[in-house]
Amino acid sequence: MENTNVVYDILIVGGGPGGLSAALYAGRSEMKTLLLEEAFLGGQIATAHSVENYPGSIENPSGPKLIERMEQQVQHFGAEIVYDQAQKIEKNGDVFSVQGMSKKIYQAKTLIVGLGASPRTLGIPGEDEFRGMGVSYCATCDGAFFKNKVVAAIGGGDTALQESAFLTKFASKVYLIHRRDEFRGAKSLVSQAEKNPRIEILLDTVPLRVLGDSTVKGLEIQNKATGETRILEDVQGVFMFVGNNPNTALIKNFVDVDAQGYVLANADMSTKTPGLFAIGDMIQKPLRQAVTAAADGAIAAISAEHYIAGLE
Amino acid sequence: MENTNVVYDILIVGGGPGGLSAALYAGRSEMKTLLLEEAFLGGQIATAHSVENYPGSIENPSGPKLIERMEQQVQHFGAEIVYDQAQKIEKNGDVFSVQGMSKKIYQAKTLIVGLGASPRTLGIPGEDEFRGMGVSYCATCDGAFFKNKVVAAIGGGDTALQESAFLTKFASKVYLIHRRDEFRGAKSLVSQAEKNPRIEILLDTVPLRVLGDSTVKGLEIQNKATGETRILEDVQGVFMFVGNNPNTALIKNFVDVDAQGYVLANADMSTKTPGLFAIGDMIQKPLRQAVTAAADGAIAAISAEHYIAGLE
Repeated sequence: MENTNVVYDILIVGGGPGGLSAALYAGRSEMKTLLLEEAFLGGQIATAHSVENYPGSIENPSGPKLIERMEQQVQHFGAEIVYDQAQKIEKNGDVFSVQGMSKKIYQAKTLIVGLGASPRTLGIPGEDEFRGMGVSYCATCDGAFFKNKVVAAIGGGDTALQESAFLTKFASKVYLIHRRDEFRGAKSLVSQAEKNPRIEILLDTVPLRVLGDSTVKGLEIQNKATGETRILEDVQGVFMFVGNNPNTALIKNFVDVDAQGYVLANADMSTKTPGLFAIGDMIQKPLRQAVTAAADGAIAAISAEHYIAGLE
Repeated sequence: MENTNVVYDILIVGGGPGGLSAALYAGRSEMKTLLLEEAFLGGQIATAHSVENYPGSIENPSGPKLIERMEQQVQHFGAEIVYDQAQKIEKNGDVFSVQGMSKKIYQAKTLIVGLGASPRTLGIPGEDEFRGMGVSYCATCDGAFFKNKVVAAIGGGDTALQESAFLTKFASKVYLIHRRDEFRGAKSLVSQAEKNPRIEILLDTVPLRVLGDSTVKGLEIQNKATGETRILEDVQGVFMFVGNNPNTALIKNFVDVDAQGYVLANADMSTKTPGLFAIGDMIQKPLRQAVTAAADGAIAAISAEHYIAGLE
């Protein structure tokens, strides 16, 4: 067990847009800053081939390009980036200790944690293969790529209903597919979906397989009541709205969460543990986008700086 | 009086980073969107010669360059931009009417208002002349440009105390200048400032004049108790922390404000008036930066879209 013996001002766990923005602001504020990332920088957006909705981005940049620029800014302002997986957090007095998979111990006066959320997957054949090539988990992110195309939306809650309606702004037709015989979502949303001429509702129905070559070219479905299977050959996009799992395991003893498991953070990103801030997709918030995560990170860095000033 | 007869889905008032981001998201969501700007796009940041802290920006872009990219995105996604000054807002039923200085009437189902806040100025000679050339109203924005330089900070509240301490991370010395014989700010902040070896406190003192050629090269001050004037010749930056005025006159009948006059908006940017959303520097929030305004705008656009779906 190796202790690096440095006590950082700010230790950021998670290198998505939120963590990178926090590192940028913390570094620029001359805080001794370490960013821990377990695999690759960027989080979910690192796999997006276009992030045309990030304000101020150059024309149609890729996810990796946007993240590369953020990484350059972080390095410019002097924050360290270390690749290690945080496995355990302890707080003794005012100091946090984070144990990495490498067995190294990282210590800091404040923690900013942004570990994101993972969309729940269905686990059907083709889902993983075509992710980002027609299979999506976010209509706000990817809907605009399906103008005048036919898509399928999977799910039965408020999100599935809202996002299906949203998708009809682009798609010529949306199959809304739900495994039960009625929706779980709000009645008003159900009635809007029923009235929408571009939505065809398929109840008692499950997707079996995503078909395609380089991109999606169909969806095989099964009617659970009759057992009948068929292929929706016109489908070019499949949106899964079956929930998200916020990645809160690491900090579950230090924060409160809502019924869906999202971390409850205050407007300044503080949590119930003094010195621990939570940001990005893992917190309860109205919109999960790169720009909202980046804003969270900036706020958390400045809040952490104020917190440390108060310790001294 | 001319009524354009179009009822927009979303009418955005104010073309700063928040309004531009709202227009981008609203346009991309296929909402019929109009952005009203009274003078020039970009708000306060349009006058910044470097915005190195906007996450994802290219190396050291200027404010105008960042705003130009946001404008291109807005146009790409089809939102209209009109230059006119909003002078009066009415709400009849579910429809907002905004009267412009041109006497045109713009109608919309939702309003997103981001009119910013104006830093209070002292009105001393040189203040306006050297604004952006050494005179600043934001340490987070501009502090990093004063590494190893001497600066003056004006003010006596929490912000002046906190930001003076922040400035000592960069500046070799900070004169903290306050007109009264004691500070208004929190005792703990006062005692930190007193203990900070890089801060020299000058009480009972007012700034008279900012000196310089192309940039700031001194500050003339006066001791109010003795009447004595002198010039701080080593000062290269002057930070004014004497408060901000949120620009809320247009919507004051539609929103609640806090004791400082900032608009109270919910996490989804909604206000007490259904369909009216407030964003950016004019709302109560922990950090006023381009990236937090951009996040507000994205959230407000999606919230407005949900609100409209609920009307139908």
